Amino acid sequence: MDFLSDFLTLFLGKLQSPTMGFLIGGMVVAAVNSELQIPDAIYKFIVFMLLIKVGLSGGIAIRNANLTEMLLPGLFAVVTGILIVFIGRYTLAKLPKVRVVDAIATAGLFGAVSGSTLAAALTLLESEGVKYEAWAAALYPFMDIPALVTAIVLASVYTSKQRDNALESLSKQEYLSKQRVTAGGYPNQRRIERRITASGYPKDPRDTAGARVRIWPIIQESLQGSALSALLLGLALGLLTRPESVYESFFNPLFRGLLSILMLVMGMEATTRLGELRKVGQWYALYSFVAPLLHGFIAFGLGMIAHITTGFSLGGVVILATIAASSSDISGPPTLRAGIPSANPSAYIGSSTAVGTPVALALGIPLFIGLAQALGG
Amino acid sequence: MDFLSDFLTLFLGKLQSPTMGFLIGGMVVAAVNSELQIPDAIYKFIVFMLLIKVGLSGGIAIRNANLTEMLLPGLFAVVTGILIVFIGRYTLAKLPKVRVVDAIATAGLFGAVSGSTLAAALTLLESEGVKYEAWAAALYPFMDIPALVTAIVLASVYTSKQRDNALESLSKQEYLSKQRVTAGGYPNQRRIERRITASGYPKDPRDTAGARVRIWPIIQESLQGSALSALLLGLALGLLTRPESVYESFFNPLFRGLLSILMLVMGMEATTRLGELRKVGQWYALYSFVAPLLHGFIAFGLGMIAHITTGFSLGGVVILATIAASSSDISGPPTLRAGIPSANPSAYIGSSTAVGTPVALALGIPLFIGLAQALGG
Amino acid sequence: MDFLSDFLTLFLGKLQSPTMGFLIGGMVVAAVNSELQIPDAIYKFIVFMLLIKVGLSGGIAIRNANLTEMLLPGLFAVVTGILIVFIGRYTLAKLPKVRVVDAIATAGLFGAVSGSTLAAALTLLESEGVKYEAWAAALYPFMDIPALVTAIVLASVYTSKQRDNALESLSKQEYLSKQRVTAGGYPNQRRIERRITASGYPKDPRDTAGARVRIWPIIQESLQGSALSALLLGLALGLLTRPESVYESFFNPLFRGLLSILMLVMGMEATTRLGELRKVGQWYALYSFVAPLLHGFIAFGLGMIAHITTGFSLGGVVILATIAASSSDISGPPTLRAGIPSANPSAYIGSSTAVGTPVALALGIPLFIGLAQALGG
Repeated sequence: MDFLSDFLTLFLGKLQSPTMGFLIGGMVVAAVNSELQIPDAIYKFIVFMLLIKVGLSGGIAIRNANLTEMLLPGLFAVVTGILIVFIGRYTLAKLPKVRVVDAIATAGLFGAVSGSTLAAALTLLESEGVKYEAWAAALYPFMDIPALVTAIVLASVYTSKQRDNALESLSKQEYLSKQRVTAGGYPNQRRIERRITASGYPKDPRDTAGARVRIWPIIQESLQGSALSALLLGLALGLLTRPESVYESFFNPLFRGLLSILMLVMGMEATTRLGELRKVGQWYALYSFVAPLLHGFIAFGLGMIAHITTGFSLGGVVILATIAASSSDISGPPTLRAGIPSANPSAYIGSSTAVGTPVALALGIPLFIGLAQALGG
Repeated sequence: MDFLSDFLTLFLGKLQSPTMGFLIGGMVVAAVNSELQIPDAIYKFIVFMLLIKVGLSGGIAIRNANLTEMLLPGLFAVVTGILIVFIGRYTLAKLPKVRVVDAIATAGLFGAVSGSTLAAALTLLESEGVKYEAWAAALYPFMDIPALVTAIVLASVYTSKQRDNALESLSKQEYLSKQRVTAGGYPNQRRIERRITASGYPKDPRDTAGARVRIWPIIQESLQGSALSALLLGLALGLLTRPESVYESFFNPLFRGLLSILMLVMGMEATTRLGELRKVGQWYALYSFVAPLLHGFIAFGLGMIAHITTGFSLGGVVILATIAASSSDISGPPTLRAGIPSANPSAYIGSSTAVGTPVALALGIPLFIGLAQALGG
Repeated sequence: MDFLSDFLTLFLGKLQSPTMGFLIGGMVVAAVNSELQIPDAIYKFIVFMLLIKVGLSGGIAIRNANLTEMLLPGLFAVVTGILIVFIGRYTLAKLPKVRVVDAIATAGLFGAVSGSTLAAALTLLESEGVKYEAWAAALYPFMDIPALVTAIVLASVYTSKQRDNALESLSKQEYLSKQRVTAGGYPNQRRIERRITASGYPKDPRDTAGARVRIWPIIQESLQGSALSALLLGLALGLLTRPESVYESFFNPLFRGLLSILMLVMGMEATTRLGELRKVGQWYALYSFVAPLLHGFIAFGLGMIAHITTGFSLGGVVILATIAASSSDISGPPTLRAGIPSANPSAYIGSSTAVGTPVALALGIPLFIGLAQALGG
């Protein structure tokens, strides 16, 4: 009882934090059709500033860290990233009226990580005085990349199978149609047309075997995305140079303020995308609401194992849970658009931006921190 | 004598403040055709940052304020906003070669409020150590919206009357033309053509009665404008959340610096718009020079009543005078363009940006602060 | 031996500074084809912020400075600017496959000054605790303008001579062709065509005498460029107003951080421009590598004369060497494009951005500071 009431008090207090306030403010501003806008150049620069700051502090921390400490949390990050995609594959994709490739792409985006959500969690942890390993932010790519790779692989496997099935039934029809061709006379064109409709790929079906998904380009593309690039650049600069002076005088002091503005933009974006979500239906809304919390609690549980066995901090557990709960908003969509071209972007982007991210921010993070505080005593 | 010399010393000292320095610097930069430019995205973001800061501090202040204190200043703000438009209607609009709708629109813009001018006054008050109620900045919409609504209503009333007069004379002509129609044969088309030329509206003149000005859409549009939205968002966040941490670490420290850059842009803009003003003539130049000071002193007088009766601070009186002296540069023009489509934007935008705003900034604010200091002892 | 080892230690330490780290980071980011980008509006604003800060501190310093102190360093700045162009004229321009106008334009750009490089030197001097006269940054235009003027004048002189030579040989041909014209019949058109090919100017060759290079417009254009405008605006505001409050609370604290981001952009730009440089050949690469160091050491030597005779600080000597080593990246190219229209922009912009600036930043500045420290004690 005491635990529960403690937890609820902590949870409610968090909703009044400026971070959440700006998020909700942004939603309201967009809902009343205000003309208020943050220019795109400013938005991109703010994201860069936040991620390079997160990277810098991570890099400075790793410089002085015991690398063996990072092994178990890193492994759990990879496991969670892959698991999230499989969960989506066997829940969302099985629901009626949901196209399988759309569902896989959505699950991939929910497995990938949002730098902004991560930044919000770091701010809240600091303002609550919960300690965490600064290198914990560097878990980001260990969940992000495996999730995107898994999603693209699963989608390719599925598409290949569909194609094979289509081919098989095609062969039967072909056999029948050949009988009839003697009467008619344009078999070739008909066959090609049918193949296109069945598989979405106009190329020769015998290529199937050769169409293995190449994993390296997906990883490379993830690393080249602007979000991961900024994070890794910060990490590298933190590790290899002495950026403390510029970190303390510039990147760190501006962090909170820039984050509040980013939250405003994300709130505005969430409202604007609600329409897109409506188009793809209720199942996506349900998934996007449940998934961040479910994924977060799975990662929280894994993090607790690391907490008990290797002394991973409770703040670190919250960070692991947050990156599991978050869904990618900047770097993920272009990778998926290239990797699963047959998926409908409205489905995954709408789900992530309109529901997934607000839920992770406004429910997930306060929940995880409240839980950590209640557990930590 | 002592009062006057005190006042002059105080007034001249203010012209060396960085705020005024950057304003005049911007004018010079544009006058010598420098290629120096502040990108538009930066300009918009700076305006947002200033207004949300003003809103936040207002909201935090109102949270702890006695609301009854705000009644009289709020009422005076509304009265001043309406009065300014009527003054324009019966002075500027009566001058030769001045179109009445242009004059009403210009008066509306001078009644509306400039967030940047307000921000400049707040900075100068702080650097001079003059105290003011932080909620005084929240008087902004109480003058802005009534002024815009009054201007649009007056313009509609005027246009309707013109139309009725035109119709009356039209009816006489119509009577005559009907006589002639027996000879000719295309009366309908002719009538329609004439109506269009007379009133500027191709619709049926019997609609006039139904063409009442609807006030709610004008208010809504003002509130949706980016300037008022940012201010109100800041107010709401200040009232309902606990943004003190981000306010103290981000919005407040950057305020002065961002304002100096905004002043630079406004100075550059003022010089650039001088050409536009020249096109619409000397009467506009005269009005734009006199109006800010006249409006400011009217509001200063009303503010002094509140100072004496309810203890409204002298700094608050300066703020009331400043928002009366200021003319809208961001949110006003689009509202007017939609509300009084027949008015010439060069007239009102040129008057406000090229003369009104610099006069309010460089003469008005130092005058009002000097006066308050001389009065305050 | 002791001097050399001291110097090498100091030099290597500087490469770990955040400024250099971000520069190299930017090069790597671009080399791996990352999508990371700093929006153009942000880049322009950062340059503005840095130069106005440099100007403000210079202006504040000059207000309290002994102007006679500035004479000798100012003179040396002018001399160095002119000398650099002549060096280029008699080295780079004499190399095989190098067009003379391209070489003169490149030398002009290397004589002109980069505000960003100057800003980097100031940061490094401060973090190393090397003292310098704040007005030393105001030496910028004293080298920048003479270099650009000299380059444009030399190019015009060269072009005129070429034209005269072409004309002379043309006259001979004309004489011959006239003989033949009796047989043919379209001499006029042929002559005009030839003149165009020979001189690049389709106008009448007798204008040559009147085509004197007018120097004032070149100076004016330099002063109107965005970089020098921002610097001079800062200088004027520092001299004539009291901007200390806004300088201390805004421009100065943000300086280091913004500079680090600018270095990142410059690093990215350097890698991107390498391709352009490759097109114009190895001689440009060689020149761009050697020139910054050579020019820097010439200015360092002249600066040492001022150090010994008039007490110019060693930090000031480093600044003089840095502005000599730097090559213009923002203001120079448009002036040259207008002033020497026949030169190939890929040649001079590629040389400056891809090699000259990185060499000046990553080798020049640390070398000059290390040298000053080793000399100073």
